[in-house]
Amino acid sequence: MNIPPSAPALLEALRAAVGPAHVLTEGDLTAYELDWRRRYRGKALAVVRPGSTDEVAAVVRACAAHRTSIVPQGGNTGLVGGSVPDASGRQVVLSLQRLHHVRSIDPANLTMTVEAGCVLQAAQEAAAQQGLLLPLSLAAEGSCTIGGNLATNAGGTQVLRYGNARELCLGLEVVTASGDIWSGLAGLRKDNTGYDLRHLFIGSEGTLGIITAATLKLYPQPAARLTALAALPSLAAAVDLLQLTQARLGAGLTGFEVMNAFSLELVAKHFPQIPRPLPPAAWTVLLEQSDTESTEHARSLFEATLEAALEQGLIEDAAIAESIEQSRQLWHLRESIPLAQAEEGLNIKHDISVPVSRIPAFVAETDAEIARRFPGARLVDFGHLGDGNLHYNVQAPEGADPAAFLREHEHEINTVVYDAVVRHGGSISAEHGIGALKRDELEARKSPVALGLMRAIKQALDPEGLLNPGRVLRV
Amino acid sequence: MNIPPSAPALLEALRAAVGPAHVLTEGDLTAYELDWRRRYRGKALAVVRPGSTDEVAAVVRACAAHRTSIVPQGGNTGLVGGSVPDASGRQVVLSLQRLHHVRSIDPANLTMTVEAGCVLQAAQEAAAQQGLLLPLSLAAEGSCTIGGNLATNAGGTQVLRYGNARELCLGLEVVTASGDIWSGLAGLRKDNTGYDLRHLFIGSEGTLGIITAATLKLYPQPAARLTALAALPSLAAAVDLLQLTQARLGAGLTGFEVMNAFSLELVAKHFPQIPRPLPPAAWTVLLEQSDTESTEHARSLFEATLEAALEQGLIEDAAIAESIEQSRQLWHLRESIPLAQAEEGLNIKHDISVPVSRIPAFVAETDAEIARRFPGARLVDFGHLGDGNLHYNVQAPEGADPAAFLREHEHEINTVVYDAVVRHGGSISAEHGIGALKRDELEARKSPVALGLMRAIKQALDPEGLLNPGRVLRV
Repeated sequence: MNIPPSAPALLEALRAAVGPAHVLTEGDLTAYELDWRRRYRGKALAVVRPGSTDEVAAVVRACAAHRTSIVPQGGNTGLVGGSVPDASGRQVVLSLQRLHHVRSIDPANLTMTVEAGCVLQAAQEAAAQQGLLLPLSLAAEGSCTIGGNLATNAGGTQVLRYGNARELCLGLEVVTASGDIWSGLAGLRKDNTGYDLRHLFIGSEGTLGIITAATLKLYPQPAARLTALAALPSLAAAVDLLQLTQARLGAGLTGFEVMNAFSLELVAKHFPQIPRPLPPAAWTVLLEQSDTESTEHARSLFEATLEAALEQGLIEDAAIAESIEQSRQLWHLRESIPLAQAEEGLNIKHDISVPVSRIPAFVAETDAEIARRFPGARLVDFGHLGDGNLHYNVQAPEGADPAAFLREHEHEINTVVYDAVVRHGGSISAEHGIGALKRDELEARKSPVALGLMRAIKQALDPEGLLNPGRVLRV
Repeated sequence: MNIPPSAPALLEALRAAVGPAHVLTEGDLTAYELDWRRRYRGKALAVVRPGSTDEVAAVVRACAAHRTSIVPQGGNTGLVGGSVPDASGRQVVLSLQRLHHVRSIDPANLTMTVEAGCVLQAAQEAAAQQGLLLPLSLAAEGSCTIGGNLATNAGGTQVLRYGNARELCLGLEVVTASGDIWSGLAGLRKDNTGYDLRHLFIGSEGTLGIITAATLKLYPQPAARLTALAALPSLAAAVDLLQLTQARLGAGLTGFEVMNAFSLELVAKHFPQIPRPLPPAAWTVLLEQSDTESTEHARSLFEATLEAALEQGLIEDAAIAESIEQSRQLWHLRESIPLAQAEEGLNIKHDISVPVSRIPAFVAETDAEIARRFPGARLVDFGHLGDGNLHYNVQAPEGADPAAFLREHEHEINTVVYDAVVRHGGSISAEHGIGALKRDELEARKSPVALGLMRAIKQALDPEGLLNPGRVLRV
C-alpha cells in the first residue's frame, strides 16, 4: 500500500479527533470501499466515523491540514459511484453513520430535525409514531441515509405529490471545506435572507460541503391510501390518464408508475408467484391515491375517476386493491422489475427525464432506433411517468450473452438514448445524480455556460478540491 | 449631473445594442428611479429597455466593458429598495419590461415558459385560458413581473399549499455577469445533473445574474374554492385550528390568514363599508379551501371541519361565504389591512417568520415587551400563519404624531422584534427579501459562516461587482 508521507501524522490527528476506535484502517472495509452496484471498488487511507458535528468539522480540518481529500458517505447505496474512494489509498472516507439521531420533531410546525446518518426508514418511523408522514420513499430506504438522500437529491415514488428530497428540506447543518459549521437548521417555510445555500448543498453530492443534519417537512398521515392497476393501449393514453387523474384527484394522486409489457413479462418469468390481477397490456399503470377523509370517500372517488377513464377509452381494464395486502402486492409487482431484470442478466440502465408531454414521442423514436441498430434488443421501460422520469433500460437479445452485449454496445446505446433525451429537452440523470459514472457524459453534454458556473462555485467553496474530488465535475 | 468620463461611449454602445429609442436618459424617469414605498430615490445614468435575451446580454457586456454597474428591474414593486439605482448617476437600470411574452404553455406537462418582464397577472390569465392555475398570488400581481417574483422569491397567499415562487420554478434562462446566456429552461420535475443553479439565482435579487425567462409549474384549476371566516379566542387556538384543518383538508387547505382584533378595528374605522360577517374577536382567521370534486363536496367537508373545531373550542363562531362575491369580500377584508394602516398613519413594518409552533410565544413576549417599553403603541398583527409568516407592524399610540414616533423609535422597535425573532429561530425577512433596506441588519444578524459562503459565491459569479452592487451584501 502506497501511503503518502504525511499519513501517520494525519491518522494520529484523526484518532485524536474521533477516538482511535472510530478510525478504521485494518480488516475488511469492503462495505465502505465497494459501491452498491459493484462497479466501483476503491481503497481508503482510512474510514473515519465521527460521532458529532464538531467531530466532523475536526476531521475536515485535519484532512485539510494534510491536503488529504475526503469522500463523505452515508448508507453507501448510491447508483453512480459517488460515495466510494478512488483506488489511490490516499482518500479518507468520512462515514456519517454515527450521526444517526432524530434530534427533534415539532408536530405543530410539521417538521423534524434529523442527523445525516439516520436511515431513511428510521426517520419515516419516527414521524409515523407522531401520526405524521415523511413522504420520501425509495427502494433503498432500509439502508440509505438522510444525508445521502439530500446530497443526491433523491427522488422515488412520491415525487409527483411531495417533490424530491430537495423540496422536503427546510434547513441544513453543513460542515464546509474549511471545517466551519454552517448552522442553517431553520424550520421555516419562508426565509428570504440571502442566497439559498441549502439548495446549493442539496444535490452537490458531497463536493461542496458535508451535510450533518437537516430539518425536514412532514405532512399529516392520510386517512386512506388506495392503489390500482390499469391496463392501457398506449403510452399516449397514459399521458392522458395522468392529466385526467391529476384534474380529478388533485394532490390526492400520490403515485403514477408506468410499466411496459416486457417489464411485466420479465417479472412473470422470474417471479411467477407474484399475482398479476390484469392480463398483459401494451402498458400498465400503477396509481396511488391518498385521501384525507376516509376509505369510503377514497374508493368512490377512485372508482368514478377510473370509470371516466374507461369511458374515454384511456384504459382497457382496471383493478383497485381491496386490502392493504393487495395494495402491497401491486407495489411489489412494480418494485420487482429491477430484480427481474437482474435475474435476466446484465443490462444497460438509464435514469432519464423529459417533459411528460414528450414521453410518447421520446419512447417511440428511441425504441425504433434501437430496434433498427440493435435487432432483438429488449426494452424494459418503466418509471415515474408523473415526473417524466423513465428507467429506460436495454436488455440483450434473447439468447445473446448479456456481458458481451454490454461490452460491445453500452456506449453506443447510451449515445442513442442521451441524444434523444437532449433532443426532447430532457435530463440524462433524473434522480440518481452524476457521481463518477456520468461525470464525463455531463461534461460532454451540459452547456459550457452551466459548467463554467458550476466550476466557479466549486472553486469558491472548496478551493483546495478537498471534498469528493472528481465527482460531478472533473476538476 | 456628474457623468463619468466613459459615459458617452457607454451610451453609444447601449444605443447600438438595443436601439436609441430604448435608452432613456431624458425626461421623467421617476417610475424607474423611485421605489414602490417611496423610501429610495436614485438617479440612473440611463434606463435601458432591451427587447430580447440577446439584447440583455449585449447590454451586460457593454456595461462590463465600461465598468458600469447594472440594476435589473421588473415591475419595480419591491418593498426593500432592491430595484432602484443609487444616487450616483452612474448606474444603468436594465428594465426587463419589453421581455413580456408568454413563450409557451404545455398543458400535458403542466408548465408554462414566460419571459421575465411578463406581469404576474398576465401570466395567471394565460394559464387560466387553458384551464390551468398558476398559483402565485400577491397584492402587487397587477404590476409585478415574473422576473422580479423569482429574483425576490416572492411569497403571497398560496404558499401554504403551493410554496414560494421558488417552488413553482422548474427552469431559468439567465444572463450572467460576463454577458453569457445560461439556457436552463427545462420543464423537468426531476433533473440531477449538477449543482442547482436555478435555486441560486432565485432569491438573489439580481446580484448574481439577470433572469430573462422561466419555466413555471402549473396545476389543474380546482373545481370549487370556498372561503370562511372564524373567530378565535387566542393565537394558540389558531395554531391548533391550523393543525386540525391541515389534517382534515390536506392539500385542500390553500389559505390560512390570521388577523388580530386591532387590525380589523382599523379596517372598520377607515373602510366602514366593508361588511364584517363576524363580531370582533381576539383573533380572526380567514380559511380558504380548494376542492377538485365539486362545490357540494367542498361545502360539506368544510362545514364538518369547522363544526369539529367549534366542538373542540378552537373557534367561537364561523361564517362560510355563500357566493363568489361574499368570498371576495372576505379576502377584501384581509387585504384592506395594509391600506387601513396607511390611512391611520406611518407605521413600522415587519415581515418576519418563526416556526408555526413558536408563533403564540413570539407574539405574547414581543407584545408584552413593546407595551412595556412603548406604552400605548398599537400592534397590527396579521399574516400567513400557515407559513409562520407575520406582518408584525407597530403603529404609534392613539393621538401621537406617527412620523415623530417612527423617527424616535423605529430602530429600537426593530431591535426588540428582530431579537425575539432570532430567539425563536426565525427570519427577519420572510418574503420581502433584503435589498438595501435590510442589508445591514442581515450583516449584523446572519452567521459569519453563512455570510462568508454568500460572499464567496458573489465573488465567484460576479467578480467585478457589476450586478446590483450593495444589495443583499455590502460588498
